[in-house]
Amino acid sequence: MFNEIIRNIVDEAAGGVGAVLMGYDGIAIAQFFHPYEGADLQMVAVEYANILKEIRKTAEILEAGAVEEVCIKSQKFHVVIRSVHPDYFVALTLQWDGNFGKGRYLLMREAPRIRKALEL
Amino acid sequence: MFNEIIRNIVDEAAGGVGAVLMGYDGIAIAQFFHPYEGADLQMVAVEYANILKEIRKTAEILEAGAVEEVCIKSQKFHVVIRSVHPDYFVALTLQWDGNFGKGRYLLMREAPRIRKALEL
Repeated sequence: MFNEIIRNIVDEAAGGVGAVLMGYDGIAIAQFFHPYEGADLQMVAVEYANILKEIRKTAEILEAGAVEEVCIKSQKFHVVIRSVHPDYFVALTLQWDGNFGKGRYLLMREAPRIRKALEL
Repeated sequence: MFNEIIRNIVDEAAGGVGAVLMGYDGIAIAQFFHPYEGADLQMVAVEYANILKEIRKTAEILEAGAVEEVCIKSQKFHVVIRSVHPDYFVALTLQWDGNFGKGRYLLMREAPRIRKALEL
C-alpha cells in the first residue's frame, strides 16, 4: 500500500529520482528509488530525518507551529519534504530540471491518504 | 551597507518579520527583526545556521552540488534561506500569510549584491 503510493509519486513527478516515507526517528516505512549512481540513497534518507529534526527544533523555538513543508534546491537536485503525520514525513527527490511544482502538488495530494493509512 | 540591504528586504517583503545575513558558523554580519513577542530571534538565527549545516552535509552525501535555496513552511511562519556566498547565507522570515514569492524574489535579487559586497 505505502510502497505503491510512494512509487506512484516518483513515477508521476517528471524528473523524480526517488521518495521515502519515513519516521522522524530515521526508520523508513516505504521507499522507492530509481537506480542512481554515486550516492547511498538509504543514507541520504536518514539525513533527511536529521534535517527535519533540526527544523522542528527551530520551529519550536520560533513557536512557529507544526512544520508543513520544506523545499531544498541544490545545483543537481530539488527535494520536497512534507509532513504527513506528527511522526512521519515524505521526502521526494527530483532532478534539478524536474517538475518541482508537480512534485509539491503530488505530496500535498497524497498526504491525507498516507495519514489516513498510517492511522489505521 | 549590509544592515541597509537586510532591512530593505524585510520592509519590501509584505509580511516580513525579520532577516539575517549570517555565516555558516552561526555568526551574524547583519540582522533586522521587527519587534516580536514570544521568541528569541537571535537564537532562532543560530538555529538557521545549524539547519543549513545539516542540509549542506546531506547535499554532500547526495553529491547534489551547492545548496542554493531552502524554504520552510510552518503553520505561523514561512522562512526562505538563500546561499549568497560559500560561507554566508540570508534567512528571511515571513508571517504565514506574507508574500512568500516576493520574499524569494527579493533574496534572489539581492544575492549578487550581497556576494559582491562580501568579497570586497
